[in-house]
Amino acid sequence: MPDVARLSINQICVLPQWSLAQAIDGLARHGVPAISVWREKLHEIGVAEARKRIDGAGLAVSGLCFAGLISSADAAEAATARDDVRRAIDETAGIGAACLVFLSGGVDARDKDLAATRARVLDGLAQLADHARQAGVVIAIEPLHPMACATRSVLTTLKLANDWCDALGAEDVFGITVDAYVTWWDPDLAAQIARAGKRIRAFHVSDWLVDTQDLRLDRGMPGDGVIDLPAIRRMVEAAGYAGHVEVEIMSARNWWKRDPDDVVRTIVARYATAV
Amino acid sequence: MPDVARLSINQICVLPQWSLAQAIDGLARHGVPAISVWREKLHEIGVAEARKRIDGAGLAVSGLCFAGLISSADAAEAATARDDVRRAIDETAGIGAACLVFLSGGVDARDKDLAATRARVLDGLAQLADHARQAGVVIAIEPLHPMACATRSVLTTLKLANDWCDALGAEDVFGITVDAYVTWWDPDLAAQIARAGKRIRAFHVSDWLVDTQDLRLDRGMPGDGVIDLPAIRRMVEAAGYAGHVEVEIMSARNWWKRDPDDVVRTIVARYATAV
Repeated sequence: MPDVARLSINQICVLPQWSLAQAIDGLARHGVPAISVWREKLHEIGVAEARKRIDGAGLAVSGLCFAGLISSADAAEAATARDDVRRAIDETAGIGAACLVFLSGGVDARDKDLAATRARVLDGLAQLADHARQAGVVIAIEPLHPMACATRSVLTTLKLANDWCDALGAEDVFGITVDAYVTWWDPDLAAQIARAGKRIRAFHVSDWLVDTQDLRLDRGMPGDGVIDLPAIRRMVEAAGYAGHVEVEIMSARNWWKRDPDDVVRTIVARYATAV
Repeated sequence: MPDVARLSINQICVLPQWSLAQAIDGLARHGVPAISVWREKLHEIGVAEARKRIDGAGLAVSGLCFAGLISSADAAEAATARDDVRRAIDETAGIGAACLVFLSGGVDARDKDLAATRARVLDGLAQLADHARQAGVVIAIEPLHPMACATRSVLTTLKLANDWCDALGAEDVFGITVDAYVTWWDPDLAAQIARAGKRIRAFHVSDWLVDTQDLRLDRGMPGDGVIDLPAIRRMVEAAGYAGHVEVEIMSARNWWKRDPDDVVRTIVARYATAV
């Protein structure tokens, strides 16, 4: 059973129900010690106000989600996207988040060239290193599920994330987000988590529902699906990760329609029994 | 551009529209030289009648789809599933198909243990070798997309399929189905196709739609999505595969609602321009 002091709840679990201010108050009310902030909600109140409220509630911030999508084959589009990541780096520092969660972006339909797309993203990441270092921010690159390869992430495996970190060679700036939902199917999971080791800067959990009905917004509450979450948590801990265990559920058909206090209460309960 | 003599169309492209007899006649009418047979449609008319019609139309049979799902943690269930695969092996021989497409089955929700599930499937495959050898049938194990891991296939990567073939050590009986739709996202694709080499016994193509709306039944017509199909076809050919290029599109929202002659006509045209 994981330590409750390590629980973080990603704001996306209650995205339609609560503003950032409401989420901060809500998590504090339920004794949840940490939050992960969704960027579009942060922009509604701004970094200074968010920081004041987060500190006032005594919450830690396990991450800012997300920035990236720098995979465009168009040089100007890619440069604009990198600039947006630089703003997100500053926001991450501004709210005192442990890391910035980075998504690469999907394959560009104009060229359908995965190898070239991956090379562009890796090169783009290298260009962000100085800004992140100056801001004291860790960019935690997150491989997504292969079903997101066309839209959000050509980074589809933890092995490739490790390969990219090897290539980038700046372990002070680049780390990895391990999300159980997007990696549980991987025969190489245990080996690549061990290889990642101290690179692991964030650990996200949710469950895979057998009757999944959407490629992005149908994640399950821990315990409602088929992922052996405690086994994956133990792998991550054995690799040296001792940070927050962040519950991240986007659920358009279920949890986004519930009373947000019930959602938080359920997460706290399931954290103790199914994570 | 691939040789039209190598085109095969999987019956599932027109599953709701045509019986097996209609599909045989339809493909012959459009000059398609080969068919892949869907098993539930085969059962409607039986092996002898199907064989007579296929031979009468002069079609080759690139495969029988599918058998497997032997991953149950319940020993009696798994034994029953293996017996069904043995029947499918006999059917494969009966219709003169080039191979039997094999799907492993998903993770058992009762134990959530992927490693144990995979070990059970591998052991079950080994138990099928003698029957396949006696029938002169190749079992072409197919890794499916990781999004099918909970329901249809704990075999999620081509690397694992190669590992299983290494472990089985019976290259006369066990081969691999490479499906572009389920493997295109894989950073190891080129290396694992090269490693598979002569193990490749079937090659399936369809396209990944950017706005995919279903985890199983929303495949796209070649050219309508983001997969570089010619590049993957060339990898498979460079590995030594010279068999049929099988178009396999399950499309509940689009192609299953169309006139089946239009579907076949479109496939023939796209085969020349997008595969």
